[in-house]
Amino acid sequence: MSSLIYNRNQIDKALKGLDLIKPIEKGFVEYSRGNSIVPPVGELIFDNPPGDVHIKYGYIKSDENYVIKIASGFPKNNFLGLSTSHGLMVMFDKNSGYLKCVLHDEGHLTDIRTGIAGAICAKYLAPKRINKIGILGTGIQARMQLECLALVSDCKDVVVLGRNKKNTDKYIDDMSKMGFLLEPVNSSKELCSKANLIVTTTSATKPLINEGDLRKGTHITAVGSDTHEKQELDPNILKIADCLVVDSISQCLERGETKKAIDENLIDKNNLVELGLVIDSKISYRKSENDITVADLTGVAVQDIMITNAVYNKLKN
Amino acid sequence: MSSLIYNRNQIDKALKGLDLIKPIEKGFVEYSRGNSIVPPVGELIFDNPPGDVHIKYGYIKSDENYVIKIASGFPKNNFLGLSTSHGLMVMFDKNSGYLKCVLHDEGHLTDIRTGIAGAICAKYLAPKRINKIGILGTGIQARMQLECLALVSDCKDVVVLGRNKKNTDKYIDDMSKMGFLLEPVNSSKELCSKANLIVTTTSATKPLINEGDLRKGTHITAVGSDTHEKQELDPNILKIADCLVVDSISQCLERGETKKAIDENLIDKNNLVELGLVIDSKISYRKSENDITVADLTGVAVQDIMITNAVYNKLKN
Repeated sequence: MSSLIYNRNQIDKALKGLDLIKPIEKGFVEYSRGNSIVPPVGELIFDNPPGDVHIKYGYIKSDENYVIKIASGFPKNNFLGLSTSHGLMVMFDKNSGYLKCVLHDEGHLTDIRTGIAGAICAKYLAPKRINKIGILGTGIQARMQLECLALVSDCKDVVVLGRNKKNTDKYIDDMSKMGFLLEPVNSSKELCSKANLIVTTTSATKPLINEGDLRKGTHITAVGSDTHEKQELDPNILKIADCLVVDSISQCLERGETKKAIDENLIDKNNLVELGLVIDSKISYRKSENDITVADLTGVAVQDIMITNAVYNKLKN
Repeated sequence: MSSLIYNRNQIDKALKGLDLIKPIEKGFVEYSRGNSIVPPVGELIFDNPPGDVHIKYGYIKSDENYVIKIASGFPKNNFLGLSTSHGLMVMFDKNSGYLKCVLHDEGHLTDIRTGIAGAICAKYLAPKRINKIGILGTGIQARMQLECLALVSDCKDVVVLGRNKKNTDKYIDDMSKMGFLLEPVNSSKELCSKANLIVTTTSATKPLINEGDLRKGTHITAVGSDTHEKQELDPNILKIADCLVVDSISQCLERGETKKAIDENLIDKNNLVELGLVIDSKISYRKSENDITVADLTGVAVQDIMITNAVYNKLKN
């Protein structure tokens, strides 16, 4: 059995020292080149207790396998002392349908590949000189994004905006131990005045950052909103952005910040640039240090496929 | 680990003596009553080698869990001495998203729940006196259907129509050992002249049974066609049927025999009767021994949910 299912401990060990930026960049490139098959996201929604499950699946045409990722979010788990995100990745042989492995990652690989996507956005779009990193939110992704940014930036100065003091203090305490210098701020206006690389990681359903708060030369990666309802940015920010990058055009027309701005006729879908194209391109999509750039991430199956591949190969060797 | 993933041997043991008709009937009833959530089927299609993967998932609203079933068909596996069908069932806690179990059934539970659905159709729709059972095809479902029919009928006389003699002989040999008396026939006309309970189990893409071949008083369950392309019955058979039952109206409008007959304007979708309603009803949908009845099965996630539940409960006790 041990060769079919791997638990969180085994996966954590395999992740140590594993380069995930390169494979996940390759995944985005293959996706944007049309070299992958990624059907629409499967979804289950629960009311009582509230929760949602996303099934993301597909394959890279040139690869030997297909991957099905099941990830859930049950916010009330928090009150029970349980993790809110959960799930697993399943990999099958594309030539026979035989099971290769179940990675029972309990949602951890989804958290990481989302963090890595944020780091990739910063690598290609952030201003050259990052004064401070601004983090909105204090949950799992607030941690993951900062941890992954360290892979592409030397900046250790961080401002953080949380909804409640206790969680913010805990976040500052935890991330300080990882070598970051953190300072809490009281408003998104203050956050925007101090940071020029901002990552939003909340499950807000109303804008937290207004157009007027933003300074020239800022990059924002919006990670939190991945459903029809969720929203973190004033949609006018997408309108004034000098470059708007999305992880998947088809998904972002259906969910997240981009959908809201499209619905309000603020942006033209023909101006959306897919992250895979940015990575694949020889040109820089940030044209000047004064540009405002925005990346809207909803999470694409190619990320799940590539992280599952990378972890599986490490486990097998 | 043993409490999270179960292999084929463990599942086979749990299946021994397990009543599956009752839970799967309940699944169809809950589905037709609107007490389940079953999103559209997820699908991956492969060209080289040819194969398809279906992801069926959902939950019964009153149950404590949700189930995601991944089942594949890779026809060329045959030539490699491998099973053509494969896959697994995954069950999670509906209150937390925590994994309850992976049943690595290698596609076997899908085969069984399809056989059970055929038996349920026969239980409610077959004529009282079954002269002979007619089986079209000699593959896994040809076996499974006959085996499951024994749960609801005493008839042991079987005629079988296969494409090649070797497979037909092997089928007759194997099923004889299970107590059936089998005779090969040379045409679907001959099959229809001898049998009044017919089950079609092939992956044909053109009709194998013509309207003119059918005798009054016959029941046909069409199991094979579950995609846009597959077809086993002359669509006129659906037109002349006194009762046309489908496992899922929404699915059968998109795939299988019913879709073909709808596309040709031969039947009215308002006349489709869902299997769950037939089970749930106090009346008989076969009005006379001369009726021609047809059941079109495409496979519904509630079957997967219910068989996973039943096997899991047995494994846990």
